[in-house]
Amino acid sequence: MLADRVVLDQLTLALGAARVASTPAEMAPYIEDWRGRYRGDALAVVHPGTVDEVAAVVGICAARQVSIVPQGGNTGLCGGATPLQGGRSVVVNLSRMNRIRQIDVDNNTLIAEAGCTLAAVQAAAAGVDRLFPLSLAAEGSCEIGGNLSTNAGGVHVLRYGNMRELTLGLEVVLPDGRVWNGLRALRKDNTGYDLKHLFIGAEGTLGIVTAAVLKLFPRPRARVAAWLDIPAPAAAVKLLGLLQARCGERLTAFEIIGREALNLVCKHLPNARAPFPSNPEWSVLVELSDPLEGARLEGMLEATLAAAIDSDLVRDAVLAANLAQTEALWALRENISEAQRLEGISIKHDIAVPVSRIAEFIERAGAALKARWPDTRLVVFGHIGDGNLHYNLSRPDAVSNQQFIAETGVVNRVVHDLVHQLGGSISAEHGLGQLKRQEILRYKDEVELDLMRRVKSVLDPQALMNPGKLI
Amino acid sequence: MLADRVVLDQLTLALGAARVASTPAEMAPYIEDWRGRYRGDALAVVHPGTVDEVAAVVGICAARQVSIVPQGGNTGLCGGATPLQGGRSVVVNLSRMNRIRQIDVDNNTLIAEAGCTLAAVQAAAAGVDRLFPLSLAAEGSCEIGGNLSTNAGGVHVLRYGNMRELTLGLEVVLPDGRVWNGLRALRKDNTGYDLKHLFIGAEGTLGIVTAAVLKLFPRPRARVAAWLDIPAPAAAVKLLGLLQARCGERLTAFEIIGREALNLVCKHLPNARAPFPSNPEWSVLVELSDPLEGARLEGMLEATLAAAIDSDLVRDAVLAANLAQTEALWALRENISEAQRLEGISIKHDIAVPVSRIAEFIERAGAALKARWPDTRLVVFGHIGDGNLHYNLSRPDAVSNQQFIAETGVVNRVVHDLVHQLGGSISAEHGLGQLKRQEILRYKDEVELDLMRRVKSVLDPQALMNPGKLI
Repeated sequence: MLADRVVLDQLTLALGAARVASTPAEMAPYIEDWRGRYRGDALAVVHPGTVDEVAAVVGICAARQVSIVPQGGNTGLCGGATPLQGGRSVVVNLSRMNRIRQIDVDNNTLIAEAGCTLAAVQAAAAGVDRLFPLSLAAEGSCEIGGNLSTNAGGVHVLRYGNMRELTLGLEVVLPDGRVWNGLRALRKDNTGYDLKHLFIGAEGTLGIVTAAVLKLFPRPRARVAAWLDIPAPAAAVKLLGLLQARCGERLTAFEIIGREALNLVCKHLPNARAPFPSNPEWSVLVELSDPLEGARLEGMLEATLAAAIDSDLVRDAVLAANLAQTEALWALRENISEAQRLEGISIKHDIAVPVSRIAEFIERAGAALKARWPDTRLVVFGHIGDGNLHYNLSRPDAVSNQQFIAETGVVNRVVHDLVHQLGGSISAEHGLGQLKRQEILRYKDEVELDLMRRVKSVLDPQALMNPGKLI
Repeated sequence: MLADRVVLDQLTLALGAARVASTPAEMAPYIEDWRGRYRGDALAVVHPGTVDEVAAVVGICAARQVSIVPQGGNTGLCGGATPLQGGRSVVVNLSRMNRIRQIDVDNNTLIAEAGCTLAAVQAAAAGVDRLFPLSLAAEGSCEIGGNLSTNAGGVHVLRYGNMRELTLGLEVVLPDGRVWNGLRALRKDNTGYDLKHLFIGAEGTLGIVTAAVLKLFPRPRARVAAWLDIPAPAAAVKLLGLLQARCGERLTAFEIIGREALNLVCKHLPNARAPFPSNPEWSVLVELSDPLEGARLEGMLEATLAAAIDSDLVRDAVLAANLAQTEALWALRENISEAQRLEGISIKHDIAVPVSRIAEFIERAGAALKARWPDTRLVVFGHIGDGNLHYNLSRPDAVSNQQFIAETGVVNRVVHDLVHQLGGSISAEHGLGQLKRQEILRYKDEVELDLMRRVKSVLDPQALMNPGKLI
């Protein structure tokens, strides 16, 4: 098609031939997601290195109604960075925009380009004795632009917030190729609509985030963790309240792990050391940290846990005595997904409900699923301090993969309907992407959908930005 | 005008005659701001008591192109809740919507209606042993809807964030009379554009906020404050870093107070007790708090201040020994505005720059103003931990009020141009309202203004919501 040829020529003139991939072999890694669940088509995959190059690419595409798929580390779980099949689109991979543009220690901020990996930003912060607190399994390869576009969460949201709360300013290439410079490094600014919040979590449907001003925090110097055997999820919620009241902001993580999840890690993780002789039905992994060295966290945690044991909120506890033990406990938590992958296929959910409803959710969802599929194994774990669970079903031995996957829709209906009934979210931290774009229509009310569509229509009137995702 | 008569009749049918004020005497308190700086005209002032009544009012106005001015406690500083002169508008006062709809202790949230005073929300939180941390001078009479619409700040932003960061969900009556129910009480929810951030800080130009889900925190049980004599603003910034590194999240407030500001308080506040024999050129008021009782905060603060004195960041310090002394120190800070009012008229600014630029701002702004107006008195104080200063000029004795006020534009130019040059904001926590609606056009770039106008046009296509404010 001649028009496509012209687009390719213009992209090549703008970026140089080395930065424009258009053969199937060159494009292959970028038009499929890392799990191989989504695969699409593209005219080209481009690798701009500056905001001006991104703006040029968007301008070229906008002039010829070619759609644009922004992409970072390609580690997403919902197909948000993969082009659609049969579409006419250009994938804009931001990985070359990987500079830390500025670090302002006194202001506790840094400016990172979209293509910086999360690990690189963490390292840049550590280099000036600060903490950038976002932390999640993909941190070595996921990129800041993707973290922003999916409003990433992870294990430290409890204390530090989501990516949204960690961001002070943005630079964005708009769907018409203009650049919005909103890189303000201010804690307080009330001079109009706070536009950055439109682009954060928008999954690239309103523009391409090219850089951000991120908040830094004092670096923790004391840290203590414990693995707890708790009688039930309801006890975890009470325990959370107790820890918050007695330890305040020192409480950095509060994760729940069901027995099946722990069993799988102990089975598949080499050198996994189970914390108790037999795996508890429900465990909590708790961590305190403090920027103050010698902050007596062990004593504080011991005293709080003693009170919790007296109140029947905790049955038994293993405190890590040093950093190696702390990391061993965290390895149990962090390898659940990998262990589950090794065990076979599963049906996954990323849900949130108010913390006060989480025990009810676990009980009712479990009962409903077990009633219908008695042999299913529920692999339940997650950030209970945020009301966020990864609520997964592993395939029973007696069922084929195909039979199991065929049940996905019915399983989702049971889980998501209950989540909705409890005032929850069917995507707590992974976004909608392609995966839940239809599913969300069942749960969001018409007024909210209309507002979202209006915002989309006025910021991206040609509907070129990341079509088929989120909205 | 017959059309106006019909609107009044419909409003009366919707709310009852007692809730629709249309005589000059009845409307007087609502069409003028509390400082008497702005005064406007209205067809009526209405007092709805439920979200359905608000929706009915907006629907009636929208059908006849009558503009709508949402109003809370009417404590704003920028005329944002006062109708324009000569306009055809209805003031919608939310004060009757003052219920706490729900408190969820385990989820650390409450749902407050827009007309709740901030103090009422603080009290509701305290009633369940929690903290709602927003705190500002007007808290006894300002209302949550106004706090949301101006994204209020205050003295605890350093630790807890602005109103925006304290909000999980909103209920909003849209400009066409529909209700958006976004009252989600979730810490994590990534299912589309985060619409609440459009309405927070929008000063009622996109809809009427009628209720919000607000975050609660553990209640501090230990608290210590100190008044410090510091050598210069640059030392305050270094001291802030030291306190954050050594005390972490315990640092709850960090305020700077210039000598003129302290002089005025000591002059006008009955029983003011100056902390030192002579007022320092620059003071810092610092506060630590902790939910843990007996948290040894005094020892921590003493040790940190000793290190600061060794590093020449602090010259002298007065530690409050008990709650009464702590409150006496805070009285010095909190009565600066009132003392300044008693002293006479002033030209005020509410600015923010990156914390790392604040010393440069103070030095350069002071030099520029003193060069041009040698006798002016600079009354400088504020939330230096957030980079936010109230940077005010008191009238010199030799100059008449009229002469002084006539200089406002020139003074603003000097101050705001410098703020802009340093990457700052000309309205850190008060909003734009009528006061800075024109001024902001000088500083915001065209792309951002265009985005704001697009958002406004698509959410409020008839341009009926709070005309003449913000945008």
